[in-house]
Amino acid sequence: MSSQGVVVLAGGVGASKFLLGLGRVIPPERITIVGNTGDDFKVCGLRICPDLDTVTYTLAGKVSPSRGWGVAGDEFDCLEWLQAYGAPCWFQLGNRDLATHLWRTHLLEQGLGLAEVTARIARTWGLRSQLLPMTESYAPTRVLTDQGDLHLQEYLVREKCRPRVLQVSYRHVEQSRMSPGLPEGLAGACRVVIAPSNPLISIGPILAVPGMKDLLRDSGLPVTAVSPLVGGRALKGPAAKMLKELGHPASALGVARMLQGVAGQFVIDTQDKALKKDIEGLGMQVKVTNTVMAGPADKVALAQAVMGPW
Amino acid sequence: MSSQGVVVLAGGVGASKFLLGLGRVIPPERITIVGNTGDDFKVCGLRICPDLDTVTYTLAGKVSPSRGWGVAGDEFDCLEWLQAYGAPCWFQLGNRDLATHLWRTHLLEQGLGLAEVTARIARTWGLRSQLLPMTESYAPTRVLTDQGDLHLQEYLVREKCRPRVLQVSYRHVEQSRMSPGLPEGLAGACRVVIAPSNPLISIGPILAVPGMKDLLRDSGLPVTAVSPLVGGRALKGPAAKMLKELGHPASALGVARMLQGVAGQFVIDTQDKALKKDIEGLGMQVKVTNTVMAGPADKVALAQAVMGPW
Repeated sequence: MSSQGVVVLAGGVGASKFLLGLGRVIPPERITIVGNTGDDFKVCGLRICPDLDTVTYTLAGKVSPSRGWGVAGDEFDCLEWLQAYGAPCWFQLGNRDLATHLWRTHLLEQGLGLAEVTARIARTWGLRSQLLPMTESYAPTRVLTDQGDLHLQEYLVREKCRPRVLQVSYRHVEQSRMSPGLPEGLAGACRVVIAPSNPLISIGPILAVPGMKDLLRDSGLPVTAVSPLVGGRALKGPAAKMLKELGHPASALGVARMLQGVAGQFVIDTQDKALKKDIEGLGMQVKVTNTVMAGPADKVALAQAVMGPW
Repeated sequence: MSSQGVVVLAGGVGASKFLLGLGRVIPPERITIVGNTGDDFKVCGLRICPDLDTVTYTLAGKVSPSRGWGVAGDEFDCLEWLQAYGAPCWFQLGNRDLATHLWRTHLLEQGLGLAEVTARIARTWGLRSQLLPMTESYAPTRVLTDQGDLHLQEYLVREKCRPRVLQVSYRHVEQSRMSPGLPEGLAGACRVVIAPSNPLISIGPILAVPGMKDLLRDSGLPVTAVSPLVGGRALKGPAAKMLKELGHPASALGVARMLQGVAGQFVIDTQDKALKKDIEGLGMQVKVTNTVMAGPADKVALAQAVMGPW
């Protein structure tokens, strides 16, 4: 691989949209995606990897356009029966989506690593980029709230983000190891991109994998982050609410502070241009552009802005 | 329980039809069903119990009327995706049916026994009879054929019963133990019924569980079998072909010979009345009646014939 690849740290929906655009700016084969698995959880013994699957389904053109996750047109007969049996079914798992979890769980039980399993699933749907889980370990993100200590998905989906967040932690992450393939991806890359994803529950877990920050720093590559917050609001998900409750500014500035020391370049939305000076004060180069990816042209333009020149 | 219960050894489709009739003749609560699990197998790590599920779905009024197994109106989206991933998908598993297998596998992995899991599934769908697996062990029936040694389901479904059968064996059955609940069922029973099911692959495995034949004999109860063969043909499945290839008469007489020493009473179809003398020669009482269960009235009449007087 020539040094024209890009390594992208990715959460779910926002990151997937960004990756669609990036794949129009550089060949998808040159993109190595490091996917968050801190949002993984288990239902009826099945290993669910929501962010990895959102990336896969989106890049495969199979994602539900209305939800942004899950499979387009998927129905829920299997889940309804599971519910009749007494399974906890607050997490929506469609019939086809369940096949992914069943197959992944089966391969993991046969002894394959999550990286190989993820690659096989991606290959099935024709993904041209390389999708790596941040780690092969199960290291679920926990959210300590005023209503107890919750698995991230319990907080997000079951409780609909209503409890007040007191702390976010990445359980077992200190024992986790980076998934194989990342050093090779970095060796062929000219840039690392932190996709527009929640800094606490999508990017935070990836950066918490032991050695991850050092590896990025030691690569000597420019690290470019895209703010997931626009005008103080997240386009999707609870990023603003969570930042606020944890005492951070619920804005691009708050995100920039969390990525200080990791990202040297930061892309913010035109709505946030007033924050440019403050973010530059953190030692980052700042680019102001439209970051709201409403259509394909927006996605491509954002990817072009990220890729430079800087 | 008063001594008016019935214990029924049951395979799949034929047995389920018989049980529908029996439940109109005596209260379903008084029926203890010992279901064959020799046809169990595993797909993607899921434990499938086809005969148990056929009984459950039939008694629950949820069985597909056209197939006689599986769930009415069930669709196959999940299986189609599993197939895309490379799973072996020659066994038809519908979306709702898969929920049963997922839930069963999950409960088994949590440490519950198959008897308890089967009872929970049956309870979910309102079954009033008690459904027991013949054993909690995994003891799959193997079919040695001219095309190799096959799992029963490989022979039945994947190979569509085409290979010539050389031997049928019940793997691991000698280490299996009767599932709990059967002695209690027998204690409250006035009769044991061997439902009209394939003697080699439905009833044979049940009788091969160590202690099963002794338990039936020691109970002192009349054991009444219904021939699954009518006019030398099975109404469903490969019983006639298998019996013939193994050198047995492909008729009610062949079935009676296999059950000699176990069943003292035998119900054959009017089409087979010429066999009455020969079967009586085996030391069995024989009743001749219509055994073809085309509609509800047939099912009830057959159950009444079985229940006597003899």
